[in-house]
Amino acid sequence: MKLSIEPLTKESFAPYGDVIETSGSDFFPINNGSTQRFHDLAEVQLDAGARTLVNIFRATPLSYPLNIRMVERHPVGSQAFVPLNNRPYLVAVAPRGDVVSVDDLKIFSARGDQGVNYHAGTWHHPVLALEAVSDFLVIDRGGEGPNCDEFFFDEPEIWIDL
Amino acid sequence: MKLSIEPLTKESFAPYGDVIETSGSDFFPINNGSTQRFHDLAEVQLDAGARTLVNIFRATPLSYPLNIRMVERHPVGSQAFVPLNNRPYLVAVAPRGDVVSVDDLKIFSARGDQGVNYHAGTWHHPVLALEAVSDFLVIDRGGEGPNCDEFFFDEPEIWIDL
Repeated sequence: MKLSIEPLTKESFAPYGDVIETSGSDFFPINNGSTQRFHDLAEVQLDAGARTLVNIFRATPLSYPLNIRMVERHPVGSQAFVPLNNRPYLVAVAPRGDVVSVDDLKIFSARGDQGVNYHAGTWHHPVLALEAVSDFLVIDRGGEGPNCDEFFFDEPEIWIDL
Repeated sequence: MKLSIEPLTKESFAPYGDVIETSGSDFFPINNGSTQRFHDLAEVQLDAGARTLVNIFRATPLSYPLNIRMVERHPVGSQAFVPLNNRPYLVAVAPRGDVVSVDDLKIFSARGDQGVNYHAGTWHHPVLALEAVSDFLVIDRGGEGPNCDEFFFDEPEIWIDL
């Protein structure tokens, strides 16, 4: 089956997490009015004793049509991706739960000025850069204990094409 | 007096916080080798009961020569700025302490692929965008209680010129 791609919006992404963008977000002025603060755009989720990590992921685009074989989740922490090169990318997600149905997979096309924050437990495909090698600022959880589950689909024919 | 500007490096910025960049940072491969993870690039500092905020600051460049009148600090939380438009900016800092001497002010020129993370208590000037209105991803502290002190210089003639 070939999955359809829809534009990323705060509303459509709400079941999975936050869209980090200025568009449609509230701000207040700071620094004598020279700066607009778009405030508190993502919920950083951590279990007790964990800390916030700041990382850069340098992602090479995969080849399309892309055969989707798996998704992963971080059960005890959120994970945010914010593009640093203003290039579009894809986001593949499925709802929280112990199993993932192919029918529940959603593919979003994100603009280069949109970040995403997967809430803890949201199934997602590893980062899907497009066009060129791209850097993303990633905000996630550092701490003891396991925090990554993988789910492999039985169906061999799950495809995304651009 | 006119302050001199020096290039931002991890070494020169170490007394004030972290430089968030891939250059000179370690990474490890993830996602079957398609992604490099430059891991744990900044120390996010929070007091007990506080949480991590993710924000976007949209900053209008100030006019140069710039007359520096004040610096501020966040005593109980770090604050990171990561440029989203790949444009250079300036960073003005002074060491932690109850008073700020003009002689201790340092001005760094940051590249568009370098972020900074001010550690709690580091004195700094509000964001100094250059060239055009610029967005920065800002990671700081949300919580109860005051977290911003301002220090105004007695000297009226402190200048930065480009």
